[in-house]
Amino acid sequence: MRETLKSLFTKYGFTDAKASLLSQTYTNSTIDGVNSHGINRVPLFIEYIEKGQVDINAEAQKVQSLGSIERWDGKLGPGIINAVKCTDRAIELAKEYGIGMVSLRNTNHWMRGGTYGRRAADAGCIALLFTNTQPNMPPWGGKYSRLGNNPLIVSIPRKEGHVVLDMAISQFAFGKIKDYGLRGKKLPYPGGWDDADELSNDPEKILGNERGLPIGYWKGSALSMVLDMLATILSAGDSTAKIGKKEFESGISQVYICIYPKLFHDTEIQENLLQEIIDYTHNVEPMHEGDRTYYPGEKTLLTRAKNTKEGIPVSEEVWTKILQLAAQK
Amino acid sequence: MRETLKSLFTKYGFTDAKASLLSQTYTNSTIDGVNSHGINRVPLFIEYIEKGQVDINAEAQKVQSLGSIERWDGKLGPGIINAVKCTDRAIELAKEYGIGMVSLRNTNHWMRGGTYGRRAADAGCIALLFTNTQPNMPPWGGKYSRLGNNPLIVSIPRKEGHVVLDMAISQFAFGKIKDYGLRGKKLPYPGGWDDADELSNDPEKILGNERGLPIGYWKGSALSMVLDMLATILSAGDSTAKIGKKEFESGISQVYICIYPKLFHDTEIQENLLQEIIDYTHNVEPMHEGDRTYYPGEKTLLTRAKNTKEGIPVSEEVWTKILQLAAQK
Repeated sequence: MRETLKSLFTKYGFTDAKASLLSQTYTNSTIDGVNSHGINRVPLFIEYIEKGQVDINAEAQKVQSLGSIERWDGKLGPGIINAVKCTDRAIELAKEYGIGMVSLRNTNHWMRGGTYGRRAADAGCIALLFTNTQPNMPPWGGKYSRLGNNPLIVSIPRKEGHVVLDMAISQFAFGKIKDYGLRGKKLPYPGGWDDADELSNDPEKILGNERGLPIGYWKGSALSMVLDMLATILSAGDSTAKIGKKEFESGISQVYICIYPKLFHDTEIQENLLQEIIDYTHNVEPMHEGDRTYYPGEKTLLTRAKNTKEGIPVSEEVWTKILQLAAQK
Repeated sequence: MRETLKSLFTKYGFTDAKASLLSQTYTNSTIDGVNSHGINRVPLFIEYIEKGQVDINAEAQKVQSLGSIERWDGKLGPGIINAVKCTDRAIELAKEYGIGMVSLRNTNHWMRGGTYGRRAADAGCIALLFTNTQPNMPPWGGKYSRLGNNPLIVSIPRKEGHVVLDMAISQFAFGKIKDYGLRGKKLPYPGGWDDADELSNDPEKILGNERGLPIGYWKGSALSMVLDMLATILSAGDSTAKIGKKEFESGISQVYICIYPKLFHDTEIQENLLQEIIDYTHNVEPMHEGDRTYYPGEKTLLTRAKNTKEGIPVSEEVWTKILQLAAQK
């Protein structure tokens, strides 16, 4: 998969280094089971390049640097490449100062946000990352979508497997809702508003108008709004309000905060404290038969182990499309 | 109210400065309509002092200082006093470095978390604050409460009124659920698990066993867990697992992150970007007749204006109790 993608990205004009980084990132997300933001997303990424939404030659540039905080401009380059650069810079700031922040404007979709949380954790850093998006959820009390699902990532380095929360502020991704619909199933909980302005768990009723439900109703609505505010003002970039006026989601704003906890010189104590929390939440009777609890990121590691051993399940249709894109160019 | 409380705290042995800070904080929270963590909470605070859970003479101490991050020990002193000290220190670090973090262990309940978000915003800082608590929500898939509702505060300074998100990770506070019960009402959405291990919106059915529902089901469960992990490892303090083993909630762990966005020297641009987001989310047709949208913290400012003009509504019972406590001592 990595080689096929690398050859594809090379054909589309990326340098060897950038084609390697992109193909590795898309492949890793797919190994981890996040096909929606891995292999499945490659054709759309190529389409955005073709349409000029993503500038393959753009390099993110530092705009302002003030101690432990920096502002960068993504120049509408590929979201993955910009995100890797800003994550690495936030890691450097954290290692220098203890905590560091990079804000990034004019970037594009970073695909799976957890990629950068894991990257920071591999470097021994705690990360707190978020992005804004196009509007896809109504603010609580309002009728039309004015909030993004603004994914939030929190990662914590851990020898036995990093803790990585990678969560959009919507209750369900629209891709997930579509999957339920295709299987003729209802969502287990309400996921959006229907045509009659009522909350619904029926994919058919909520897929028509993109009005998703924030986690915790008014609470997620408020959380989504402050994440957009922070990403926008810290980067002096485009807010969900501005992104919503564009034809395609592009030129979004992001924040990368890293903390380097090894500075406290008690990594073993920290590992034990983490394990204590994991044990406490693992060792609990299930709510219903067959239930079990996981720490954030645990299921991803299980999927990665399975796919590494057995091979990565990929939709035939998606793979064919990718081979076609490579052949056409 | 402030004078009565100050005289009460002075009788209980607080220095003049500390009695002033405490009475002002409890009074401000009550003016803002948060009686549950304002005036209503004073009798319990006094009880904790009487029981030795809160050490009125303790002073939070810096344990480690490494560039822009610091670790403090709250020495089981009053949560409000420790929180003010750590907020002020995080503000100083932010002004020096751009972003700064203070972690705090061995502290006590900070009452209304928004107090410190507003304090940071008054100083021109963005704040990101959170605390762990005793367990009161089951981890997703588990039967018993092993997660705290771990309030999270995000504040953004703004001339026309700060944006302040002050949100526990539970869908409803148990105090709120009790209020619904007393009024013979059901919750508008499920708020916890009943005896049959089903989600319920019936206060009677969910108040018996403290098993609250996290916002967004599995998503809030994961968010609560990572907040506890961060507060615990960054402070090397007690996790929800350890707090749950104590007779009373005490010796909790907190994190204070501040950012000083004025360093970017474009405060007016930032104010305009904030206003753009507020306008975009305000100017939307209501979902249902009578609905309207608010930015986080907006309702608090409306309540403050009303109570400042008309006086602060306080339960007769609570006020009598406070006068009795003062008379007894």
